[in-house]
Amino acid sequence: MPVGYSQLPELSAVAGVRLSAKAARVRYEGRDDLVVMELAAGSRCAAVFTRNAFCAAPVIVAREHLAKTSPRYLLINSGNANAGTGTPGLEDARRSCQALAERAGCDASQVLPFSTGVIGERLPVERIESVLQGTLAGLSEDNWSSAAHAIMTTDTVAKGVTRTLQVDGKTVTLTGMAKGSGMIRPDMATMLAYIATDAAVEDTALQDCLQQAVEQSFNRITVDGDTSTNDACVLVATGASGTSCLDTAHADYPAFCTAVGEVCTRLAQLIVRDGEGATKFVTIQVEGGRDSTECLQVAYTVAHSPLVKTALFASDPNWGRILAAVGRAGLAQLDINPVELWLDDICIVRHGGVAPGYTEADGQRVMNQDEILIRIVLGRGEASETVWTSDLSHDYVSINADYRS
Amino acid sequence: MPVGYSQLPELSAVAGVRLSAKAARVRYEGRDDLVVMELAAGSRCAAVFTRNAFCAAPVIVAREHLAKTSPRYLLINSGNANAGTGTPGLEDARRSCQALAERAGCDASQVLPFSTGVIGERLPVERIESVLQGTLAGLSEDNWSSAAHAIMTTDTVAKGVTRTLQVDGKTVTLTGMAKGSGMIRPDMATMLAYIATDAAVEDTALQDCLQQAVEQSFNRITVDGDTSTNDACVLVATGASGTSCLDTAHADYPAFCTAVGEVCTRLAQLIVRDGEGATKFVTIQVEGGRDSTECLQVAYTVAHSPLVKTALFASDPNWGRILAAVGRAGLAQLDINPVELWLDDICIVRHGGVAPGYTEADGQRVMNQDEILIRIVLGRGEASETVWTSDLSHDYVSINADYRS
Repeated sequence: MPVGYSQLPELSAVAGVRLSAKAARVRYEGRDDLVVMELAAGSRCAAVFTRNAFCAAPVIVAREHLAKTSPRYLLINSGNANAGTGTPGLEDARRSCQALAERAGCDASQVLPFSTGVIGERLPVERIESVLQGTLAGLSEDNWSSAAHAIMTTDTVAKGVTRTLQVDGKTVTLTGMAKGSGMIRPDMATMLAYIATDAAVEDTALQDCLQQAVEQSFNRITVDGDTSTNDACVLVATGASGTSCLDTAHADYPAFCTAVGEVCTRLAQLIVRDGEGATKFVTIQVEGGRDSTECLQVAYTVAHSPLVKTALFASDPNWGRILAAVGRAGLAQLDINPVELWLDDICIVRHGGVAPGYTEADGQRVMNQDEILIRIVLGRGEASETVWTSDLSHDYVSINADYRS
Repeated sequence: MPVGYSQLPELSAVAGVRLSAKAARVRYEGRDDLVVMELAAGSRCAAVFTRNAFCAAPVIVAREHLAKTSPRYLLINSGNANAGTGTPGLEDARRSCQALAERAGCDASQVLPFSTGVIGERLPVERIESVLQGTLAGLSEDNWSSAAHAIMTTDTVAKGVTRTLQVDGKTVTLTGMAKGSGMIRPDMATMLAYIATDAAVEDTALQDCLQQAVEQSFNRITVDGDTSTNDACVLVATGASGTSCLDTAHADYPAFCTAVGEVCTRLAQLIVRDGEGATKFVTIQVEGGRDSTECLQVAYTVAHSPLVKTALFASDPNWGRILAAVGRAGLAQLDINPVELWLDDICIVRHGGVAPGYTEADGQRVMNQDEILIRIVLGRGEASETVWTSDLSHDYVSINADYRS
């Protein structure tokens, strides 16, 4: 059960985007595991992918296809990542694009493939092929919810969000869905996330907007420090709302970027809230650093510390572990004297020792909460950064030791 | 129960070093938790300490004292780390050195203090003072075993090793003990380790020898990636064997360094074998890197991956997780084609996919073992590095969530 999120909200349709989810038995039985998203002709599409050197076959093929032309279809399967599959895996990814293209009447390069699930097994392309016709027949603008469910793997809940904003005085819609729960430390993109809008947005403006939003959202979360081989985030602008095309000079472009940022941040946080075995949603805020890099260095060192994560699971205000993580983060010439450590509004550490007036009861009160803010003040600059993470529980070990994910 | 190690072997006395262990009730009841080591006059002493910026009060005081004079006494307590205790903590460390110096008839600067245990609580100096006289009365060359037990915290077994070697044709002894189980990713030194020899060694030669040995042993192990605030490793040479003084030009110096390296490696590996909740002892060997740095980068990324560690716990040959960790290790321009992944003598990955002839049964056979070699061949250079680590089990979470360590 995710922290502070219980079910998928209603997701608004986005004019120009039709979806369909079907059961292809890629790995799971009795549930949908295949999604086709159809983008109206003329839609613009921006994307960011994992930086993992062992990136999956579909990531390589999607990059190739994006470089050639504008996509008309996204083909997504869960249950199998088609990663670590070498040349045969690339052929499987290409073959599934070709199969969809033949049935949809477009070029194979207009199909972007995405896979998520177990690494190192061949993709059962024939099973996918056998349900493609039926999947295309089911395309509808109203299928965001079933699509959000079909892309889940170890996720315990489907993740999505809808926002509206004004462009040229008209209301446009932004709807996004994402999946991800473990192997989460996105680097330039998260597991899988798809966001669409009926606004019209020029190519460069769309890609800039997505990159900026991803940097502050999916690239600021971590569950286990493990960057996936398959991370991808796609932003589609269909232009079906009939508004003028947003470029970077358009008066409404900043508001559009803010809205995309909000959608990405919400989806990213939902992934952490549903982090494998998560019982806590933890915000780590590092302030007063010399630059963004050292703030992130401290934040991730704390976020990845198994000792901090198990203390969070135990609701134990064991601040010594947080302090030890800050101390080993590798900051040059860190003077510990101005460093402060706060749990929510409680100052715990000041001048290298326990803050005057701090009591264990105060720390315990904060640690008992489901949502906790760890604030680290470095006191040596103006930069600050925020990272979101979860705790390390028995369920995390069970999920990853008992199930080949 | 540690992996492949069940009990402390017999530890040989080292002429010139007397030890005594007593129960001071620092934190634990009904067991020894205080150790005094007395070094014969004229002993040389080398030491390396943690690089954690939040280093503990005793580390600061020990460094100060070492800079002034040659130590005659080491004062070690378990149960309380005297870390994160600010100025009062420094006063406590100095006061306990002073108390021992008064009773032993030396200067306070000739006492080095060491503490290990819970962070952030004041050291109960009075309890230590009250048993110092009795501890001094118990000094004997034959107390290595009781001392090795008294310095334990979450360790499940006492750790020690004895070696002999020839210097000037005479047999000299090297005996070492260590403690450590969690918060283990030493950076220039591990938790606490004490090694003594009756060889005579010149100061620079002793420090060089220790630093080199630590670099290839304690700095190559990781349990949870958490560098302690209190790490310290001390090497004492009493010269009581009557051999000539080893300097770096002495014909027997290389053999001495090799023996110290072996003792450090054995102690370091014992810490991993007794890693919190460990059920596997894992050697990660990275070969064919451009330099040592990138080999270590890959080795530690794999060693710290919670997904790899839980797969090891589950004895699951889930090599995709190892591959994903290699891929995200941040190596510049990593060509995945020449990369090979081996479990012991089984080649699993070649040319970006499953190696021809690999079967799950082969991988399973290796993963079922208690001791596993993960060998990663990068195929882009001549450098290689080895790191030792343990798995991530339910017991690791229990130990760190249920107990304030």
